[in-house]
Amino acid sequence: MVNYPNGRKSSIAAAQPAAKTAAGGRGMELEKEISMTNDYYLNIDKAVIHKKPTPVTIVKVDYPMRSAAKITEAYFKLPSTTDYNGIYQTKYIDFEAKECRSKTSFPIKSIHPHQIKHLDAVTRHGAIAFVIVRFIAYSETYYVTASLMTDYIRTCGRSSIPYEWFKENGHLIPYSYVKPVDYLVIVDQLYFKETQ
Amino acid sequence: MVNYPNGRKSSIAAAQPAAKTAAGGRGMELEKEISMTNDYYLNIDKAVIHKKPTPVTIVKVDYPMRSAAKITEAYFKLPSTTDYNGIYQTKYIDFEAKECRSKTSFPIKSIHPHQIKHLDAVTRHGAIAFVIVRFIAYSETYYVTASLMTDYIRTCGRSSIPYEWFKENGHLIPYSYVKPVDYLVIVDQLYFKETQ
Repeated sequence: MVNYPNGRKSSIAAAQPAAKTAAGGRGMELEKEISMTNDYYLNIDKAVIHKKPTPVTIVKVDYPMRSAAKITEAYFKLPSTTDYNGIYQTKYIDFEAKECRSKTSFPIKSIHPHQIKHLDAVTRHGAIAFVIVRFIAYSETYYVTASLMTDYIRTCGRSSIPYEWFKENGHLIPYSYVKPVDYLVIVDQLYFKETQ
Repeated sequence: MVNYPNGRKSSIAAAQPAAKTAAGGRGMELEKEISMTNDYYLNIDKAVIHKKPTPVTIVKVDYPMRSAAKITEAYFKLPSTTDYNGIYQTKYIDFEAKECRSKTSFPIKSIHPHQIKHLDAVTRHGAIAFVIVRFIAYSETYYVTASLMTDYIRTCGRSSIPYEWFKENGHLIPYSYVKPVDYLVIVDQLYFKETQ
């Protein structure tokens, strides 16, 4: 069912003293693991949450055989929203996910001002909004409520958020083989405690 | 604020006996008008609803000057979800929009099986899900509750849905200059009657 290779790089990273896995993956490992998790949620009909396609501006398209259009010129666009959204337990879910290579802090510039504005807007309208941050060096993946993070960014006067801040304000997301980034466990704890 | 040209093709289409506007726009007119409407909703902080980027598979990227990456080979992918989603009045909103050039019926093949499955899934999870269908010949834009339409598609044994069916089961979406496809008026009528 799931279209990903069996081996899991970051479990190797957890065994070894880390950091080296970052070079190849460039943020893709977390994305793959979230996709696996979302596929799992979808397959058991627990939630419908998808990654949005990468926004590109298409400039030129060739139609070599009419049926298979080939895009020959396109450019990456800055995202105006977050990467992920969907529905869980009747609630609108919205989040952004980032890998962090630094051992000490998360650079605020990794999140675009548009995305911060978007997270604030959906929060205001009643969304369950959050940010998933993985510290590659520690193989730790944190769930942080969006408003906590955007408040901090607005008031901290810094260019990065210390790792310690995530330990204090975030929630460690559990890993399992079929749900490598099982973030709905945290959503359940924070929003649906009584229904468990 | 809004990045669209001032002239509005389909108002001309409404004055003249229609149909000719279909040739040039090829489904883009409705998309533009929904974007204008979504921008309006966003600017007055009424709702946060966006079109998802067109899904493409990127095969080759050139970095001519390092800063401006140029995609030189990419292909269109079949969409696995609908084009639009977001949040309104704390509710998850999800819809697909289609223009129809026929005067008599809407071809069912315009909606991919994946999208039907997706609309059913989000409905099951409590979404406000619908399909917007514009009959270009009549300059009429209908809101149809997703479950009504997917039920019909599953049981009708036909390859198209008659125009009359939309008149009976759909809701005509009002047009205004700043909100060309003011679909939240229908959402209000169907889901938030008491709060108006």
